[in-house]
Amino acid sequence: MTARKPVTDSHLEREIFEQPEVLERLLARRDHVAAIADDIRKASPAYVVIAARGTSDHAAIYGKYLFGSLAGLPVALATPSLSTLYGKPPRFERALVIGVSQSGRSTDVGQVLSDAAAQGALTLAITNDDTSPMAVTARHHIGLSAGQELSLAATKTYTGQLVALAMLVASVTGEDALLKELDRLPAHVSETLRLCAEAIFRAERYTFMEHCVTLGRGYNYATAFEVALKIKELTYVVAQPYSSADFRHGPIAVVEEGFPVLAVVTGGAARDDMLQLLAKLKERNAELVVISDQNEALALARTPFRLPAGVPEWLSPVVSVIPGQLFAMGLALAKGHDLDSPRGLNKITITY
Amino acid sequence: MTARKPVTDSHLEREIFEQPEVLERLLARRDHVAAIADDIRKASPAYVVIAARGTSDHAAIYGKYLFGSLAGLPVALATPSLSTLYGKPPRFERALVIGVSQSGRSTDVGQVLSDAAAQGALTLAITNDDTSPMAVTARHHIGLSAGQELSLAATKTYTGQLVALAMLVASVTGEDALLKELDRLPAHVSETLRLCAEAIFRAERYTFMEHCVTLGRGYNYATAFEVALKIKELTYVVAQPYSSADFRHGPIAVVEEGFPVLAVVTGGAARDDMLQLLAKLKERNAELVVISDQNEALALARTPFRLPAGVPEWLSPVVSVIPGQLFAMGLALAKGHDLDSPRGLNKITITY
Repeated sequence: MTARKPVTDSHLEREIFEQPEVLERLLARRDHVAAIADDIRKASPAYVVIAARGTSDHAAIYGKYLFGSLAGLPVALATPSLSTLYGKPPRFERALVIGVSQSGRSTDVGQVLSDAAAQGALTLAITNDDTSPMAVTARHHIGLSAGQELSLAATKTYTGQLVALAMLVASVTGEDALLKELDRLPAHVSETLRLCAEAIFRAERYTFMEHCVTLGRGYNYATAFEVALKIKELTYVVAQPYSSADFRHGPIAVVEEGFPVLAVVTGGAARDDMLQLLAKLKERNAELVVISDQNEALALARTPFRLPAGVPEWLSPVVSVIPGQLFAMGLALAKGHDLDSPRGLNKITITY
Repeated sequence: MTARKPVTDSHLEREIFEQPEVLERLLARRDHVAAIADDIRKASPAYVVIAARGTSDHAAIYGKYLFGSLAGLPVALATPSLSTLYGKPPRFERALVIGVSQSGRSTDVGQVLSDAAAQGALTLAITNDDTSPMAVTARHHIGLSAGQELSLAATKTYTGQLVALAMLVASVTGEDALLKELDRLPAHVSETLRLCAEAIFRAERYTFMEHCVTLGRGYNYATAFEVALKIKELTYVVAQPYSSADFRHGPIAVVEEGFPVLAVVTGGAARDDMLQLLAKLKERNAELVVISDQNEALALARTPFRLPAGVPEWLSPVVSVIPGQLFAMGLALAKGHDLDSPRGLNKITITY
């Protein structure tokens, strides 16, 4: 990679641009993940439960599509409060129960894991700290090896979580073609950073934006959630994520002329539905910010961010979130906010 | 009930105030629901899948807490696009699969039901039309008997869906105490309408509100979603729902002085956590609209809506949504919008 002059001296920017090497390091742990996948195949769970909060919950949403579409396993996102507030964890015996947490110290997610372990369910933690309580509680652990994340807004650990889940599901299916596609991912991420670095500057147009909607469907439903959260955390703008399907069921009513909508449209099964909705929003003169590898989608945008070609749909969320991270960073910069310590945030959130 | 003079000549207002009789009619169908519950107990599913969109999806969220907390069954909210877009429905053999749709004509929710039926899973449809495709596809059907819903914004069919799920889960547990609590619900709903009718007028203060956040946790997580949707559908204000737990993980950053937050706080397991968050928001001088049966919560509010005492937490979402419906209606009125035909909405949304 050619040297790039950083725009800021922030952890956030460094961590965004570290992503290719972080993912490379994680992918090198394929044998460890393959061993966990073997154990899962032996246990033959009827379904999967994923417990997570915040950014990690968006990785869990991605997991729903991965497990469902590639491994035929339905995924229930856990309701940790059933364990922590109501003291009534459901019966998890037939499930694979996965807890996802950057710190591995999320108390309620940890509680779901330990309840599941106590019931004899197969458990797996995905964290960025090999010595964290969740890593110790669960039968299996995938460490992200992302290095410490110093910015309060999670970036490299999010794409790490996505890739950890993708490696796991690819290994469970045992399909070599999927594993080969994973190998090409760090190069795609580097290319995305190169293509989309300008998002930092293109965000300036939106300095006085008060709210926006983010849209994605299928695999990139998760991306809509994560980009909205980065915008909220870093810029305090009210950003609300939807699937194109849910958006038509009511919320589309909020769109009037100039209403800003950020849409993620990648090639694959969700493409046509997203394009149809974008055309409808364009008719209403919405202001479209589009993250896409599809010319037809980019052509509709006031502000287009082009993704590299050749990334398969099931891995597209790993690249498509990146212009969103850069856009949120740029918008925070344009508004004059602190990039590393947004107001109101702590790195470890204690939930009772 | 003493006669009340309607404020408008809208279907919306009529349907909101019809809710006690609608629920009374539905509760009279207890034997039908008990027979379905018997069949579920016999099948002994390992978990539950609920497929739904829009308002019905909020009933599904309520279902997660009902099944989890009262029947020990984890619930996966379906990702219909796995069936419709990806053509890869997960394996549902060990699940009870429930489709919820007011019209019974939601194409993608119907697809999940028919995929599940083809796999031999136990299926149930909850709709307001006994002759709808979903009612016919599923092995079992609970009809809401709500009468035609003419306003585009769903109100009486939403509380009907909640009560249908509550009746079902209470019957599955076989606990008489729960069924008795259900019987008292129409009276509680009447009382709520009486106590909170003024919400229609109290909404005027918020005429120029541009966005807001709605908060609820545990059972009333669903209420936060449904109230936010009513506000968006009827008033085009960007309203975003959160659980108090997720709100602390990042989004709380958007709250500055005067930021409007509508919170639902009922007695029970989620109470203390919600109160703690409200106190924090009060410190930041957020503008609090509080729906509650708790004096401590109401005291923090700029605009309090008091719920009747004595409604058990597991049934509280049936009453707590009502001031939210009235508030959204009042806000639409204050803004001069059409109450029955909000822009951009169709009663049956076709999703591909």
